[in-house]
Amino acid sequence: MKKEIASLIELDRQRTLLAHIDALLGWDQETYLPKSAVDERAEQIALIQGLVHEKAVEPRVGQLLSALEKHPDLEPLEKAYLRVIRREYDKETKLPPDFVMELARQTSLAQAAWADARRTNDFALFAPHLEKVIELNKRLANYINPHGRPYDVLLDLYEEGSTEAGIAAIFAQMKADTLKILSKIQSRPQVDDSFLHRPVSADRQARISLYLMDAVGFEKDKGRLDTVAHPFTTTLGKSDIRITTRYIEDFLASSMFSTIHESGHALYEMGIDPDPEYSGTRLAEPVSMAIHESQSRLWENMIGRSKAFWERHYAKIQEMAGTLDDVDLDSFVLAINKVEPSLIRTEADEVTYGLHIILRFELESSIMADKLAVKDIPEAWNAKTKELFGLDVPNNSSGCLQDIHWSMGSFGYFPSYALGNLYAAQFWHQMHKDIPDLEAQLTAGKTSVPLAWLRKNVHCHGSFYKPDELVKKATGEGLSPRYFAEYLDNKYAAVYGY
Amino acid sequence: MKKEIASLIELDRQRTLLAHIDALLGWDQETYLPKSAVDERAEQIALIQGLVHEKAVEPRVGQLLSALEKHPDLEPLEKAYLRVIRREYDKETKLPPDFVMELARQTSLAQAAWADARRTNDFALFAPHLEKVIELNKRLANYINPHGRPYDVLLDLYEEGSTEAGIAAIFAQMKADTLKILSKIQSRPQVDDSFLHRPVSADRQARISLYLMDAVGFEKDKGRLDTVAHPFTTTLGKSDIRITTRYIEDFLASSMFSTIHESGHALYEMGIDPDPEYSGTRLAEPVSMAIHESQSRLWENMIGRSKAFWERHYAKIQEMAGTLDDVDLDSFVLAINKVEPSLIRTEADEVTYGLHIILRFELESSIMADKLAVKDIPEAWNAKTKELFGLDVPNNSSGCLQDIHWSMGSFGYFPSYALGNLYAAQFWHQMHKDIPDLEAQLTAGKTSVPLAWLRKNVHCHGSFYKPDELVKKATGEGLSPRYFAEYLDNKYAAVYGY
Repeated sequence: MKKEIASLIELDRQRTLLAHIDALLGWDQETYLPKSAVDERAEQIALIQGLVHEKAVEPRVGQLLSALEKHPDLEPLEKAYLRVIRREYDKETKLPPDFVMELARQTSLAQAAWADARRTNDFALFAPHLEKVIELNKRLANYINPHGRPYDVLLDLYEEGSTEAGIAAIFAQMKADTLKILSKIQSRPQVDDSFLHRPVSADRQARISLYLMDAVGFEKDKGRLDTVAHPFTTTLGKSDIRITTRYIEDFLASSMFSTIHESGHALYEMGIDPDPEYSGTRLAEPVSMAIHESQSRLWENMIGRSKAFWERHYAKIQEMAGTLDDVDLDSFVLAINKVEPSLIRTEADEVTYGLHIILRFELESSIMADKLAVKDIPEAWNAKTKELFGLDVPNNSSGCLQDIHWSMGSFGYFPSYALGNLYAAQFWHQMHKDIPDLEAQLTAGKTSVPLAWLRKNVHCHGSFYKPDELVKKATGEGLSPRYFAEYLDNKYAAVYGY
Repeated sequence: MKKEIASLIELDRQRTLLAHIDALLGWDQETYLPKSAVDERAEQIALIQGLVHEKAVEPRVGQLLSALEKHPDLEPLEKAYLRVIRREYDKETKLPPDFVMELARQTSLAQAAWADARRTNDFALFAPHLEKVIELNKRLANYINPHGRPYDVLLDLYEEGSTEAGIAAIFAQMKADTLKILSKIQSRPQVDDSFLHRPVSADRQARISLYLMDAVGFEKDKGRLDTVAHPFTTTLGKSDIRITTRYIEDFLASSMFSTIHESGHALYEMGIDPDPEYSGTRLAEPVSMAIHESQSRLWENMIGRSKAFWERHYAKIQEMAGTLDDVDLDSFVLAINKVEPSLIRTEADEVTYGLHIILRFELESSIMADKLAVKDIPEAWNAKTKELFGLDVPNNSSGCLQDIHWSMGSFGYFPSYALGNLYAAQFWHQMHKDIPDLEAQLTAGKTSVPLAWLRKNVHCHGSFYKPDELVKKATGEGLSPRYFAEYLDNKYAAVYGY
């Protein structure tokens, strides 16, 4: 290894350690932090994120990059590493340290305010924080590219190379596909999922979640499960990937599929290993939010809602839940695939899910273009919900306060979720070609088989390939929305018998 | 406020933030860290402790100190603050940064090894780590004062001004007092505490612990309770003081009194406020380990094992435990005050407790004087246990592996526990003079009355007074072991009827 690469890796590893400490501060804030400690935690997070930023913009990094980029003889791993570090370095050096700490502090406070606002259904509590976060996001975009359109700049942060126009085109196709499939579904009798709403105690649901983590191959010596208001996965170290869930007593399916979803994220993080020499560096990090989401959605929906998976596990879940003894496997599988327009994104079925993303994408676009003021967000949200879903929003907690993302400062993140569905369907299509007996393997409880495919084709690479290169390498072509539409149409034709 | 003081405070607050982040890393390691993440956590802790150290030794601190110490017109708070910072600065600047990080890393690994060794009763697993920690402690002492005796130097770190000879003299008196009282107790029939060993589930014990936290005035919006192998209290922020306990199914009293003990530590931390302008500085930190322990022991033993306290709370505990319905209040109070030589320090009664400390003090003395090798520790431990308690040690987990302290690198810490008992008795004596109806207040459930006394006379001062000044101010005289002997003799004359 070139000694400049080694120096770069050493600096990078310090940054990673600090980033993992920051992840612990954030995880603890969502799980166990005493109520009165929120302000102090904001200071702690601001301090650490300031240190992460300092490490990322150390002049030595720039010097090493410039020297190495001129090197005549770079190996593929080295080239990929330099590309990743260069992108980060250029971005980070554009951000003043005061701004980075201000963003960290404000978003930490905004998260706490959002949680209060959501609990008490009081948008006014959150509005001033949201104003601040939006202003900071506009400044962020302006620092990174003062000539770009702010929303384009933010979208590119989450999915390299994406633009508002590009995503709008994909979403237009996705919306048309979705509405077509939805109308076929709505022409058929609705499936019965009432038994999924029989009360199951949080204790029992927690045991079921732990069982499902094992079922999908989550390595429990390298992670854990905790309870939060808004489930997420976070990486505190290569061997410390933590998922979270919430238990809604009269909706067992919520924690079950949230746990599988977050486990899918965790399996990706646990499987990243482009090369042992690059362990603890940014090359050993996920390549994008959309690829990350493809992993969670693939496990949640394509595996976790398949009959093959439940043939293996349903009897055990019946026993653990204690409320499904009179429900046969087929009825259960129909129920967990029920499609119905609804208010809450995280509880949405996989058909209507994309509409929730389109709603947020369109609002973010208006906000970033100064066409929508914070005070008008609830009304705009409710109007779009009526338009897309035909539903009235009874209160802001079920509307514009439902998601944590804006409070975290993440504008431009939402589209990743829908792109994740598209990537997932394309991987799933290819996986079936490569593993003809995939269903039989799942029925036999061998989730290790799809996991091995994902490890080899997606996880292990980390950030070695860009997202579009990764999908090409794994499936032979660039991202296409058609696999998702095909997947949905095939699956729901069977579920709803249309 | 002088602007140099303000600058010093600003630097100090950064250090405190980092120290609190370090506390979170440590708390998480003991409570929730996945097993495979221990090595990474050691790296994270080493990095943060290195940063804490860097902050503490910033040349600017030394410059500000030197300038301020010459100032002709310092207020008492300023003088006290400069004294505290000077002591720390002089100590920290003597430690090479590499050594600080090495100590952090090794003790993090040693703690994990100790936990394994204790669980599997395998001293050999821990021995190499202990060798390393001892060597590091000798180096630590040598850095701080190459001319001092190593154990003296270490003892002074925990209790300013203490020496091995001074503590040996106090302990000689304490040992004589203890053995005299113990022989009176042993001349009487033993009390029955068998009902305390009826199985009570961890869930029920947890609810009892949460109840007792309320009973002593623990502010739950500023802290929390979690489960660990070895209970401790840790401060993650002014409003984030976390206690821990463990639940032994067939020994309800263990978690009950451990929880009150740790709550006593937490109440101290929650009450520190020498002055709002010094919030987040080292002046707003506990003055010493022994004073800290005096608070936990006072709540655990003097209040928590008093009949007055239980007159208020016993019926509720009977209901929550479900195993004490046939046990009347007097029998319960006798049982929780049972005295019996035993193997485990943390489960020891308050009479024999001091003997456990004397054992450790004597071993540490030999180890630091190179008179006892690590491989010979188990044998030496067992021999002293026979000598002091008349007991055989069946395995190292009940012997020299029982305490976490050495694995944490804390040599010289143990004497603080016994000094804490002495301070506690002296405060307790004075509190009775100042509050003649103290027992009646406790019976009425007013733990806020002794808490207010402690807040005013001990807690609020933080590090404004040195330990010996604090006890003089609160009680009118320096530390004297006679109050503890009197307290024990009076109490146990009643319990055992001698």
